Amino acid sequence: MFEQFAGLRKEAELFFRTLQDEITTTLEIVDGAGKFRQDLWERPGGGGGRTRIMAEGRVFDKAGVNWSAVHGDSPQNPDLKFFATGISLVLHPRSPKIPTIHANFRFLQNSSGDAWFGGGIDLTPYYLDEDDAHEFHLKLKVACDRHDIGYYPRFKKWCDEYFYIKHRGETRGIGGIFFDQLGGNERELDKIFLFVQEMGQTFLPAYVPIVEKHRGDSYSEEEERWQLLRHGRYVEFNLVYDKGTVFGLETNGRTESILMSLPTLARWEYDMQPKAGSPEAKLLDVLRNPREWATIT
Amino acid sequence: MFEQFAGLRKEAELFFRTLQDEITTTLEIVDGAGKFRQDLWERPGGGGGRTRIMAEGRVFDKAGVNWSAVHGDSPQNPDLKFFATGISLVLHPRSPKIPTIHANFRFLQNSSGDAWFGGGIDLTPYYLDEDDAHEFHLKLKVACDRHDIGYYPRFKKWCDEYFYIKHRGETRGIGGIFFDQLGGNERELDKIFLFVQEMGQTFLPAYVPIVEKHRGDSYSEEEERWQLLRHGRYVEFNLVYDKGTVFGLETNGRTESILMSLPTLARWEYDMQPKAGSPEAKLLDVLRNPREWATIT
Repeated sequence: MFEQFAGLRKEAELFFRTLQDEITTTLEIVDGAGKFRQDLWERPGGGGGRTRIMAEGRVFDKAGVNWSAVHGDSPQNPDLKFFATGISLVLHPRSPKIPTIHANFRFLQNSSGDAWFGGGIDLTPYYLDEDDAHEFHLKLKVACDRHDIGYYPRFKKWCDEYFYIKHRGETRGIGGIFFDQLGGNERELDKIFLFVQEMGQTFLPAYVPIVEKHRGDSYSEEEERWQLLRHGRYVEFNLVYDKGTVFGLETNGRTESILMSLPTLARWEYDMQPKAGSPEAKLLDVLRNPREWATIT
Repeated sequence: MFEQFAGLRKEAELFFRTLQDEITTTLEIVDGAGKFRQDLWERPGGGGGRTRIMAEGRVFDKAGVNWSAVHGDSPQNPDLKFFATGISLVLHPRSPKIPTIHANFRFLQNSSGDAWFGGGIDLTPYYLDEDDAHEFHLKLKVACDRHDIGYYPRFKKWCDEYFYIKHRGETRGIGGIFFDQLGGNERELDKIFLFVQEMGQTFLPAYVPIVEKHRGDSYSEEEERWQLLRHGRYVEFNLVYDKGTVFGLETNGRTESILMSLPTLARWEYDMQPKAGSPEAKLLDVLRNPREWATIT
C-alpha cells in the first residue's frame, strides 16, 4: 500500500468500523426485536467487508449497515492502485410515518497521490413533518458549523442537486448534506477527517428522535400504498442515478451489499397523482421545490 | 420531413398503429374484465403517441401497449433531424404461473440518410414450462425462417445477450428474438419491413396460448413472493440496462409511458437463494445458462 497517509488510512478504516458497531448496536436497541445478521466477505482483488442486515424487525422492515476496506488495481484506470474504506447505511422502517434514512462516509486514495473524503446524510419521509425536517437539518448545520461555516449551505445544496430524480422532476427526499472529493494536503485531510467523524457521530442523534416520535403513529392501508409508491422512486433513483450503485454494479462490486439499499417492496402505478391539498401532495410539493429547513424562525 | 422513404415511413406508422388496435382488442377479450385506458399525448418537439394501459384486470395485473410517431431535432445530435415510430408492450399477469411478455417494434430514420428497423419479442416466466418455452421459440423461428434462415439463430443469440443482467449473472427471462439497426437500401428495407410485420403478427399466437394454458393454474403465497422477487430483477434490468428506458429518461421522454414497463409490485430480499432442486432453482439455472429451445427433438 502507498506510504503517504498510511496513518490516516488506518484511522479512517478503524473509525468507520467502530461506527458500524455503534450504529448497529443502537439500532437493535431502538428496534427492540430485530437483530443484524452479519456477512463477512472478501474482495477477490484485495480487502473485504462486513455487511450487516436486519430484516423484518419491529421498527425496521429492512436495515443495512455496511463497512468495507478494499484495495487493488483501480477499476477505472488499470495504471492506478486504489484504497477505499467506508460505511454505508440505509434504514427502511415498516411504518410510512417514519422516514427512510441513508448515510454514507468514505475515504479514498489512489497511487497518483489523490486522497479525499466523501459522504452525507439524507432523509426520505413519506409524510412531511415540518418540525422533524427543521430539527434534522438544524442538527446537521450545527455539526457542520463547528468545522466550517461554509459547509452546511454548500453541502445542503449539493445534496438537493445530487438526490434529484431528473425524469420525475423531484428530489428523492428532503435532503440533508452531501459532499464528495474533499481532499488536499495532510493538514487539510486531517481537518476534513475531524468533520467526517463528527458527521458520523451526528447520524444517531439526528435520526433516532424522529423514530421515537413516530413509532406509535397509526397508519392506514392507503398510507402504506403511498409509502410503496415512494419506494418505487427510491429504486428509480438508486438504479438510474446513484453513482455508488451504478459504479459498484459496473465494476463487479458485491451485488447483494450494493442492492441492500433497495426497500423490500416497491410499487408502480401508471400516472399516479395525489389529490390536491392532501398530505401526499404536500410532500410532493417539497420534493419539487426544495426548502431551506435550517433557518431559525 | 425527409423525402426519402416517405412511403415506408407512412406505412410503418400505420402498421404499428393498427397492430396496437389489434393487440389491445384481443387482450381485452383474453382478460375478460380489464379495459385499456388510453392517453393521447403530444411531444413538444414534434409528433405524439397513444399510451394504453390496463390495470388490475382479471388476467393482467398491469398491461401497457404504447404506440408513438415522433420527429424533430435528434436528442443525441443537434445537427440531425429524426423520425421514429413504433409499438412497445409489456404485459404483467397476476398469476406467477403465466409469464410476463415484452415486445417492441420500431422504425427510425434520420436526416443523414440512415433508416432502420429494430425490435423483438421475449418471454419472462416465473416458473419454467419447457413445453411453453419450446413452442414459443419454435413459433418465432418459423416466422423468422420464412424471411431469412439466418435470422432466428442470430436474433435468438442477440436476445440472450441483450437481456442479460450482468450484476446478477442472469438473463431477464428465457429470451426470444432481438434485433436492432436492420437497415439498408429501399429494397432491403422493404424486405425487413415484411419481416417486422410478420413478427408483429406473431406476437398474439405466440403468447395467448400460454395464457390460456395457465390461466386456471393455482398458486401459493410463496409462489407469488417468488414472482415479486423476479419482478425486482425485471426492474433492475429495465432501469440499469435497457437502452430504450435509459435513453428515454435521459432525453426527456414521456416518463409515465416509458415506465409503464415496470410491474406494479417488486420485491428485494437480501441474498435470497432458492432451495436446490426447487422449481425456482430450475428457472434460475436456465437464466444462468440460456438454452436452445427451438430444436426439434
